[in-house]
Amino acid sequence: MINTNKYLALIYRSALISLMSVCSVVYAKEPIQAIQAAKNINIAKAELGKKLYFDPRLSKSGFISCNSCHNLSMGGTDNLKTSIGHKWQQGPINAPTVLNSSYNIAQFWDGRAKDLNEQAGGPIANPGEMAFTHTLVVELLKTIPGYVKEFQQVYGSDKIHIEQVTQAIAEFEKTLVTPHSRFDKWLLGDKNAINKQELAGYHLFKKSGCVACHNGVAVGGNSFQKMGVIAPYKTTSKAQGRVAVTGKEVDRMYFKVPTLRNIEMTYPYFHDGGAQTLEEAVDIMGKLQLGIHFNKEDKAKIVAFLKTLTGEQPHFALPLLPPSSSHTPAPKPFE
Amino acid sequence: MINTNKYLALIYRSALISLMSVCSVVYAKEPIQAIQAAKNINIAKAELGKKLYFDPRLSKSGFISCNSCHNLSMGGTDNLKTSIGHKWQQGPINAPTVLNSSYNIAQFWDGRAKDLNEQAGGPIANPGEMAFTHTLVVELLKTIPGYVKEFQQVYGSDKIHIEQVTQAIAEFEKTLVTPHSRFDKWLLGDKNAINKQELAGYHLFKKSGCVACHNGVAVGGNSFQKMGVIAPYKTTSKAQGRVAVTGKEVDRMYFKVPTLRNIEMTYPYFHDGGAQTLEEAVDIMGKLQLGIHFNKEDKAKIVAFLKTLTGEQPHFALPLLPPSSSHTPAPKPFE
Repeated sequence: MINTNKYLALIYRSALISLMSVCSVVYAKEPIQAIQAAKNINIAKAELGKKLYFDPRLSKSGFISCNSCHNLSMGGTDNLKTSIGHKWQQGPINAPTVLNSSYNIAQFWDGRAKDLNEQAGGPIANPGEMAFTHTLVVELLKTIPGYVKEFQQVYGSDKIHIEQVTQAIAEFEKTLVTPHSRFDKWLLGDKNAINKQELAGYHLFKKSGCVACHNGVAVGGNSFQKMGVIAPYKTTSKAQGRVAVTGKEVDRMYFKVPTLRNIEMTYPYFHDGGAQTLEEAVDIMGKLQLGIHFNKEDKAKIVAFLKTLTGEQPHFALPLLPPSSSHTPAPKPFE
Repeated sequence: MINTNKYLALIYRSALISLMSVCSVVYAKEPIQAIQAAKNINIAKAELGKKLYFDPRLSKSGFISCNSCHNLSMGGTDNLKTSIGHKWQQGPINAPTVLNSSYNIAQFWDGRAKDLNEQAGGPIANPGEMAFTHTLVVELLKTIPGYVKEFQQVYGSDKIHIEQVTQAIAEFEKTLVTPHSRFDKWLLGDKNAINKQELAGYHLFKKSGCVACHNGVAVGGNSFQKMGVIAPYKTTSKAQGRVAVTGKEVDRMYFKVPTLRNIEMTYPYFHDGGAQTLEEAVDIMGKLQLGIHFNKEDKAKIVAFLKTLTGEQPHFALPLLPPSSSHTPAPKPFE
């Protein structure tokens, strides 16, 4: 059974690679495109969203903010296998990077949120994450004069709605794009931006078929694919991927292909954080997705290429949060 | 017994206030002095320290950094009654602000660390806080190429020691001074910087004797005083203050007087976080420390004055942390 699958996968892969090389002649020189700095940002809304993103008062405990698990000092992740939630609950899945997430086909590993706006409300109300409610967040924000004023300025209304909260966070997240990676410089014509080993890694990345899924502006993020094409992925994680959203058996173990931008910073890898290093991740991907046993040298080449995808990280002043008032409900970290 | 204490306290207070008003004529116009921006900072060391301050890899879990409990978006505190430590342990005491902490007579509420350098090592190795060890921190940092390079640049040595880590954090913390508060502007001659109510609050603050302990550049932080002079402070907290350091019964319930700078941001108040609002804190302080029952109007005046002590918050770019390497030990959040 596995052998049949493997055989089919190899045929599909060859066909895909052939097709892609044809396409690349017609449409684009390379299957990966340089990423551009964010455009059309509502600055005031994004500034409000930045505060909310860093504000632990959006959690029941007053201790967990968006930035706790999507830490912008660390590639927009927490660098943990799976995340820590309210009262130190162990999360079921690895926190995906928030960097360049506006390029994702949908949000969360299983794509259950259609966009960043819809995503932002999820963790706030998830009992295993921030463990708060949308109603309580809005009630809380209304008691903080600095926020009331800023919402008024941004939305022109004295009322605060949860949609305004998630919209502002999403607007901030749209700014979290990482242009000017060395690989992008190379794509844009600076042939000295990457070295020989890195270039060899890129060629191998294309030739081996990695690029079949990891392509486009975000080098991934634009499709759902099965984790474990050639052989099943061994994991203790209970996450089953897209089947949880569609209810279709055919979607079992289908996950959103993660972006490879800034991959050097977003360890550990896979939906269960099962691979601690890039070498390990490349090794497993080769075997399970492509039926390729990369040798040590080839892995080193691909890893070298992957490290050229680290872009300019978002650079901004740590936001200062407006203080609570005497009417603000106290957080409840131990309830 | 309480009545005798109360009587003695009132006599001491009167004597102290008389003495202070004499002193203020001789030595200074006001018992509070304007705070100056930090000087003589080793910028390279402070920049390294800033990264370490924000780096959760200094904890066993990889989730808790200095900034988790001394959050520089929120006045250098966590705004919780008592802090959350490794595996969500409930800390025994309220996290004091890191802002202006270089002015403290000693560090921690009981003054058990003589300076910021000595303090910085405490939470890292405290099993209830970051739950790591100094040895493991050093071993970890040695596997992160970005840190190895930066330590080399700052200290001119290929070896990393825990003292270098704590020194760098302390150097960063020395930069966390908050000048240019409205009250400081008033002190420096801008008589319109505070309004009538705020000025009346300041006069009342002096006249009532608050200034006996809350004085100097940091409006506190420069002495240990008994919590509960007139009557015992009622609390479920087990913290007994300075007696834990000196072993002397006379030091029971003596705590370091907290700075009142940025007090609007550093709620809740007292070593046990027992007062949620400034009004409540002023009320309790009046009754327990001074034997004064402030009426509503007087409390409002003092609170108005206290809010003029909010200074310019540290303004800097969110630090970007150097990524771990394939040799870096993975964090252990659930062990």
